[in-house]
Amino acid sequence: MSYKILLDERELPEAWYNLQADLPRLPKPPLHPVTGEVVKPEDLAPIFPPALIEQEMTRERWIPIPEEVREVYRLWRPTPLFRARRLEKYLDTPAHIYYKHEGISPAGSHKLNTAVPQAYFNRQAGIRRLATETGAGQWGSALAMACRFFGLECTVYMVKVSYEQKPYRRILMQLFGAEVLPSPSPRTRSGKEVLEKDPSSPGSLGIAISEAVEDAATHEDTNYALGSVLNHVLLHQTVIGLESKRQMEKIGEKPDVVIGCVGGGSNFSGLAFPWVADCLTKGEKIRFLAVEPAACPTLTRGVRAYDYGDVAGLTPLLYMYTLGRGFIPPAIHAGGLRYHGDAPLLCQLVADGVVEARAYGQRQVFDAAALFAQTEGILPAPESAHAVKAAIDEALAAREAGEKKVILFNLSGHGHFDLAAYAAYLEGQLEDYTLPEEKLKESLSSLPQVERA
Amino acid sequence: MSYKILLDERELPEAWYNLQADLPRLPKPPLHPVTGEVVKPEDLAPIFPPALIEQEMTRERWIPIPEEVREVYRLWRPTPLFRARRLEKYLDTPAHIYYKHEGISPAGSHKLNTAVPQAYFNRQAGIRRLATETGAGQWGSALAMACRFFGLECTVYMVKVSYEQKPYRRILMQLFGAEVLPSPSPRTRSGKEVLEKDPSSPGSLGIAISEAVEDAATHEDTNYALGSVLNHVLLHQTVIGLESKRQMEKIGEKPDVVIGCVGGGSNFSGLAFPWVADCLTKGEKIRFLAVEPAACPTLTRGVRAYDYGDVAGLTPLLYMYTLGRGFIPPAIHAGGLRYHGDAPLLCQLVADGVVEARAYGQRQVFDAAALFAQTEGILPAPESAHAVKAAIDEALAAREAGEKKVILFNLSGHGHFDLAAYAAYLEGQLEDYTLPEEKLKESLSSLPQVERA
Repeated sequence: MSYKILLDERELPEAWYNLQADLPRLPKPPLHPVTGEVVKPEDLAPIFPPALIEQEMTRERWIPIPEEVREVYRLWRPTPLFRARRLEKYLDTPAHIYYKHEGISPAGSHKLNTAVPQAYFNRQAGIRRLATETGAGQWGSALAMACRFFGLECTVYMVKVSYEQKPYRRILMQLFGAEVLPSPSPRTRSGKEVLEKDPSSPGSLGIAISEAVEDAATHEDTNYALGSVLNHVLLHQTVIGLESKRQMEKIGEKPDVVIGCVGGGSNFSGLAFPWVADCLTKGEKIRFLAVEPAACPTLTRGVRAYDYGDVAGLTPLLYMYTLGRGFIPPAIHAGGLRYHGDAPLLCQLVADGVVEARAYGQRQVFDAAALFAQTEGILPAPESAHAVKAAIDEALAAREAGEKKVILFNLSGHGHFDLAAYAAYLEGQLEDYTLPEEKLKESLSSLPQVERA
Repeated sequence: MSYKILLDERELPEAWYNLQADLPRLPKPPLHPVTGEVVKPEDLAPIFPPALIEQEMTRERWIPIPEEVREVYRLWRPTPLFRARRLEKYLDTPAHIYYKHEGISPAGSHKLNTAVPQAYFNRQAGIRRLATETGAGQWGSALAMACRFFGLECTVYMVKVSYEQKPYRRILMQLFGAEVLPSPSPRTRSGKEVLEKDPSSPGSLGIAISEAVEDAATHEDTNYALGSVLNHVLLHQTVIGLESKRQMEKIGEKPDVVIGCVGGGSNFSGLAFPWVADCLTKGEKIRFLAVEPAACPTLTRGVRAYDYGDVAGLTPLLYMYTLGRGFIPPAIHAGGLRYHGDAPLLCQLVADGVVEARAYGQRQVFDAAALFAQTEGILPAPESAHAVKAAIDEALAAREAGEKKVILFNLSGHGHFDLAAYAAYLEGQLEDYTLPEEKLKESLSSLPQVERA
């Protein structure tokens, strides 16, 4: 009766898997924010290094993981695959529940899987500094850590309200030598414009992205790094799914359903894409379940259209499910799931019916998180708790139907920095919020003309 | 080039190692706090279950670990042994540095190794509830978790100043269903007495111990649980050292020096005792290094004498190095290392010259912690950082001497709940404090007459 399926460091994947090689229909390509033309590699050169631009666009199936990156991965990878035996017993279900524990990474989440290669390839290209944005700080701390490992400087534009209210992640970034600025900041033109209109602006992820992109575009030695959405980010995260395949193989199991939470889509895609490949190329039948908050229901209620990734409209237009870049999500606690759009590759799978999407209110998500902690001992990040909730529901459905079902989900991060949210939950202060129809319509009216024409 | 030496769940130790079997001289036995007579098993029955009393006193070498306990251990054990390759490279040392990572436990530290069997044996004895004290919350959260796993209720008396200033650990305990009371509390006679004298008392660990012991002694269905110092606690922690022996064997290495931080002595002893056994019974030569804060220098500057474990004098008198139970340590951030005494078994090894003790100021300890985080990616608990500092110093000494040396230390916990201390460090607000000689003398004047006579 084992609880953990471990892999040896020698079993660490040697290449990332690129879904673009096997996808029958690719999503429409990104468009230049000014010209509206299809983005060319040289358009991205001011903010990304050549290797990452190549990874963004290639249809090669396997992209080798450089040995320098694998060496850093070995600090915590391969991550264990857990069988949730105590949770199964509590639920009295015939289902087998497995989860990949990405929370054991030094940064506490899957984000480090892409932060490390992004820092590495930028270093390779002679870049001296990376600029990025962060909300609650999950991504910022992963990039700060990766930059430190490869001797790069790191500037993080942190949404001001989080900078002030959530100091712990900020301290962690500073401990790794990153410069952390509250956004909007006077450091950039975008930031100054916001501050002139409203000196006490609390900031937003959209504003912080604009600041980081501007910083990178206006400094020769500086590039930009994004923690989700883009193809190369999803590509790096496939180490999760590739490891899970070897682990399931070892114990002779195959998942009937694969589950992940979705903000921008990177942790879900990282686990799911290598399994999607089996469905596309070998005719395997697996259900895929993408879980998002009812408060930010991009996949379940957004429209598929071209939209900007940021508020200022500096980024390329991406073809994706979106709530409109003007969408201001309510202050739910799963900070990492508050993005208005989603990864174009994931959106293609949703549009094609390969991936189902489901939305949950936050109270039921925290109920699931508490149950998971009490049985498995691990406190999940509120984001990851969306996947936990879906896994529990699938296990209960299996009990109802009296069928053995194999469930695999991604525990993308731990919740050690989210205890204020758990306190609100324990005190009954968490409110469920469902996006009203009129608010959604209003937000969608900000979609750029290029697509609505 | 591997970073982690893993064990399979099948390699989890089947028995704990009892140092009392091999120690040539045992420490003087505990004395009854009222009669001054040697403590008999029945004296402990009001607060401990029979199995733990037996483990406290036996000289059997191996104590089998019940399968129910091993099953819970499997949630996170065996823990990985890491080779700190990136730190070695940074230090440019010929030394090999290994560390056992106990911070991956669900509770974030080694404390769960004893919380689980303590909950189990109490459950076995028909006990319904456990009472305990906690300072910063490391031990309290481990016991809350273990109680939840075995269906016991848990009451935690938490030092009031920590209850108010460090809410995160408290929330964690509550999430696991524990009742957490700020101590001094009106729930006990000991608490009431303190509150009558000073209604705004910030509390202390000594007061909280008095409250928990009183709660257990005055309720038939309730026992007491202690997180360090006692023989049975050290016994449970030997899983750490036993695993480390198998891991070192696998790679054909033997430690020249074994290092751990010391508060009450449980994590140090857990790692060291199985290696001490090799020295006592097989003539192996290993140095053992116990590291404590200069602000609470029990082993380096205390006297060896009989003293109480708590402030009120309710506990048995233990023969140990002590600063006097009236010792009030300054508010250094390594909360877990602020105890006035130390485990009698460990004290015997220090007195016999088997274990060396060393004290560090907190600034140099945090410097070491920051360097460790930046190279290895793991943020250590401030307590564990004392061991990190000593390991670094040993590695630098090896570089000076040009000798290959194998260093093994215990990373007893992560620092995710200690970021306020790291913030103080980054802001230059941490002060070094060395206990003045007069203060030490004054504190030692509180030693009970039994020993001083």
